Amino acid sequence: MSEKIKGIAASAGIAIAKTFILKNPDLSFERSTVSDKEAEKKKLNDALEVSKKELTSIKETAERELGKDKAEVFAAHLMFLSDPEFVGQITSKIDDESLSAEAALDDVSSFFIQMFESMKDNDYMRERAADVRDVSKRLLAHLLGVSFTSPASITEETVIIAEDLTPSDTAQLNRKYVKGFATDIGGRTSHSAIMSRSMEIPAVVGTKTVMAQAKEGQLAIIDGLNGQVILDPSEEEVAAYKAKQAAYKEQQAEWKKLVSEPTKTADDAHVILGANIGNPGDVEGVVNNGGEAVGLYRTEFLYMGRDKLPTEDEQFDAYKEVLEKMENKPVVIRTLDIGGDKKLSYLPLPEEMNPFLGFRAIRLCLERQDIFRTQLRALLRASAYGKLRIMFPMIATIDEFRQAKAILLEEKEKLVAAGTNVSDDLQVGMMMEIPAAAVLADRFAKEADFFSIGTNDLIQYTMAADRMNEHVSYLYQPCNPSILRLVSNIIDAAHKEGHWAGMCGEMAGDATAIPLLLALGLDEFSMSATSILPARSQLLKLSKEALAKHKEAFLNLDTAEEVLDYVKTKMI
Amino acid sequence: MSEKIKGIAASAGIAIAKTFILKNPDLSFERSTVSDKEAEKKKLNDALEVSKKELTSIKETAERELGKDKAEVFAAHLMFLSDPEFVGQITSKIDDESLSAEAALDDVSSFFIQMFESMKDNDYMRERAADVRDVSKRLLAHLLGVSFTSPASITEETVIIAEDLTPSDTAQLNRKYVKGFATDIGGRTSHSAIMSRSMEIPAVVGTKTVMAQAKEGQLAIIDGLNGQVILDPSEEEVAAYKAKQAAYKEQQAEWKKLVSEPTKTADDAHVILGANIGNPGDVEGVVNNGGEAVGLYRTEFLYMGRDKLPTEDEQFDAYKEVLEKMENKPVVIRTLDIGGDKKLSYLPLPEEMNPFLGFRAIRLCLERQDIFRTQLRALLRASAYGKLRIMFPMIATIDEFRQAKAILLEEKEKLVAAGTNVSDDLQVGMMMEIPAAAVLADRFAKEADFFSIGTNDLIQYTMAADRMNEHVSYLYQPCNPSILRLVSNIIDAAHKEGHWAGMCGEMAGDATAIPLLLALGLDEFSMSATSILPARSQLLKLSKEALAKHKEAFLNLDTAEEVLDYVKTKMI
Repeated sequence: MSEKIKGIAASAGIAIAKTFILKNPDLSFERSTVSDKEAEKKKLNDALEVSKKELTSIKETAERELGKDKAEVFAAHLMFLSDPEFVGQITSKIDDESLSAEAALDDVSSFFIQMFESMKDNDYMRERAADVRDVSKRLLAHLLGVSFTSPASITEETVIIAEDLTPSDTAQLNRKYVKGFATDIGGRTSHSAIMSRSMEIPAVVGTKTVMAQAKEGQLAIIDGLNGQVILDPSEEEVAAYKAKQAAYKEQQAEWKKLVSEPTKTADDAHVILGANIGNPGDVEGVVNNGGEAVGLYRTEFLYMGRDKLPTEDEQFDAYKEVLEKMENKPVVIRTLDIGGDKKLSYLPLPEEMNPFLGFRAIRLCLERQDIFRTQLRALLRASAYGKLRIMFPMIATIDEFRQAKAILLEEKEKLVAAGTNVSDDLQVGMMMEIPAAAVLADRFAKEADFFSIGTNDLIQYTMAADRMNEHVSYLYQPCNPSILRLVSNIIDAAHKEGHWAGMCGEMAGDATAIPLLLALGLDEFSMSATSILPARSQLLKLSKEALAKHKEAFLNLDTAEEVLDYVKTKMI
Repeated sequence: MSEKIKGIAASAGIAIAKTFILKNPDLSFERSTVSDKEAEKKKLNDALEVSKKELTSIKETAERELGKDKAEVFAAHLMFLSDPEFVGQITSKIDDESLSAEAALDDVSSFFIQMFESMKDNDYMRERAADVRDVSKRLLAHLLGVSFTSPASITEETVIIAEDLTPSDTAQLNRKYVKGFATDIGGRTSHSAIMSRSMEIPAVVGTKTVMAQAKEGQLAIIDGLNGQVILDPSEEEVAAYKAKQAAYKEQQAEWKKLVSEPTKTADDAHVILGANIGNPGDVEGVVNNGGEAVGLYRTEFLYMGRDKLPTEDEQFDAYKEVLEKMENKPVVIRTLDIGGDKKLSYLPLPEEMNPFLGFRAIRLCLERQDIFRTQLRALLRASAYGKLRIMFPMIATIDEFRQAKAILLEEKEKLVAAGTNVSDDLQVGMMMEIPAAAVLADRFAKEADFFSIGTNDLIQYTMAADRMNEHVSYLYQPCNPSILRLVSNIIDAAHKEGHWAGMCGEMAGDATAIPLLLALGLDEFSMSATSILPARSQLLKLSKEALAKHKEAFLNLDTAEEVLDYVKTKMI
């Protein structure tokens, strides 16, 4: 009989194939001392060299296949293997304590992992601990002569079953053969889930038990639409899921027909569907999915995975590339949102007790004007190559917006005076992600050319709940009437001054939220590229005018649950 | 010539007296090994015993003079001296490494301090590090036979000059002789600053240089009104400050005349001036300062500085005491607001990345209903002894309020069924400290009997800025128009349903904010007890009706600066 396992739907679609179980290799060893220390150090060096070569090759594949930002983790691994502190401590342990290389590595890596993990409430440090664990495992495998099962070795159609997929694993997946995957751990925003969506591979994560239940090579169905894994499905189940798969593919084909269509509603109202991107390489996906704009280009990735700040020219090249590839469609570029939990190795920032309420984004940029002005110059120079909208993140007060804009205008004047070409169709707007700004939107609308609502942060701050914290994640309620009122206030304020209002948080692509946002008059919806066509298809069937009549009613409900119920029964 | 040193005005008033310089004792020693380990362990035990006796006596004095909560730090010190982990490690170092007791203590305390301090972004842990440092210093002094300069030894009128005052120092101050103090470090909310206000001793903190500049026994003026220290003042300066001192005392005397007066404005509008308290012992100060209510009784202290949860009876006694002492004046008791940065040793909670956005207060109580129900039963039983208002903290959604209230009503029914006397004039309200609730205040007003605005948190969340973080503390803007709009929305919503709205954050006692809050219609202002009479005196001169005419104008300004300017030029 088939076994059904529930999990979290991480990436849509259905896969039916034999399982490939990605097991962790056996890296156990006996602690021992050695007499020939030189031989032991040579063994260590050899293992280091092999690991570095391996990682360099994985990094190159990842850069090519997945883009530079996704490959940055391997740069971090490589740096660790060359870190004199790390390698030096292992060598010392061999020299001073006559330990075997394996034991020495184990001691030193445990020390680093423990040190990083002791800073428990710091995600960044936890990630560093995971990096050390990952890279040490690779090194230890080479010391022991144990071979790693690599997803790269898969050469027939399979679905991967794993405890979790590490960055090294996903970087090596061959999309030709890997049809889907299921993991024991992870959630919708874990690394493997995000990767599965960007690779468009059906995936179910967080099943807790799939590794224990699955057998190598048995048939399995990964239902990424409903978050279910079926092991050893019956013939009827296979037939039913093949039909579902075909229906989903048909729907995808229907969606594909809308690629070049404008987005309009049943009553012929137009809205813009854009995409959120992190790299110039992501524009291809935007174009292929019929994006009418880049609603949010997060520039952080330009600053990450390197050892110094990007130069003005490096930035200029990236911005220009995006603007050109978008062929005069609007591109909203957000200035640097670093700090808080997002750190740069070469930019030391204070440790903070509440990084989400800390020194980041525009707060940092107004103090580090050297960094800010470099980015603004790169943006201004790039503006000549397309339709650029510059957006400031984390604006809480009108003072901050005025300061940021004044700095931008200063740089613009300097560039123009030097004869540089700068667009005269340049809009300067702001993220609406802090409650203070949302409440005072009417005043901000007199200063900013547009608003883009960042729902992820706006909800966190409005609810005073960290959505990454599982104990309070129930308060992450996009459809709570308080959030909808703020969104409504922002949109009305923009319209009153003749401006447009967009949304670049996860809510903008959510099928339940879309009717509400349309009713509130949102002009631009920016989402992950793969959500654009489903959204366009949904909007075709909705009447903006009819939905707007529900506005007063749903803004005066008490709870998120009531709103969801209202949408489902009266607005879809 | 006199030397003027600027600092932070921590406690109002003026002191003129000779300096007493509280120097850190010389605790340097040579590291050495010992041959007689037993003698060394005996030396350690003797020093432990003397330190414990000393601390027990300080703790008792502190409990008597300052109240139980202020004394709790010494309980922590005492616990540390009896901690088998701490003492055991020192003994082991003597046994295993033949270290002297001093060296062993130094090693072990450094280890603990470093461990606690490595958790840099955690205030609680930093405090633990400070505790270990403080208690180890005491122990080391006894090992070395070095005597501590104790503020208890002061027997003539002085002003204390110190780098900082530790909890042990402030607990030993004799108010008869210590007329004021100035420190190098600290801010308005540091331990020594808070203590100076509750002891009503003029103080200037954070001068950075007063220790380096002051000489023992020289004349000094502490100007706690303007945050200035004058060393070696001229005769003219002494005369001028004596006049200021007299004027301030005269003003205090004027204020004292208002103790039994009701609070009313120039146009005869009545508001309630209440006080925020942490312990039953604080009620005396409320009564002495003419408080008309307890606007906020923080029940956390009942749960702190102990090794298990307080029983229902212990809580009942505390609540009853406050209600009885307030003689049927309203007492707003807030249910447990623990979690986040406020931890209890016996209630393990998850480490959080952003504790201010975490699992705390009502979020915790709804999950730990055992704790919550015990407190609610104690409150309900106490309600028969006065005018109790129960208030839930950190309410973000209407669901949470309904759940909390339902639990309260369940417990009430059970008590009534069992024949227990429960007040039938019991109001059930909520803190307004989360933006989501402030925005949806009209809906909440249909459920809650009253609102009390907690400005400290409301401002933090609305601005998305941790006010304890110096890099973003500039965003702590009580008079930002966005905050005032939320406050206005909350007050209007309460009034529309016939309820009252109060405020129990720092803003309620601020002389600049009071005209704004009166204009917005605030019914109850709850502040530190010592601010009540100045506020009453200020309100006597303000016309509510005239101020209300400015409401539309100041709610439509752009920045906090503009509002402050508006108040100063048009409303005071």
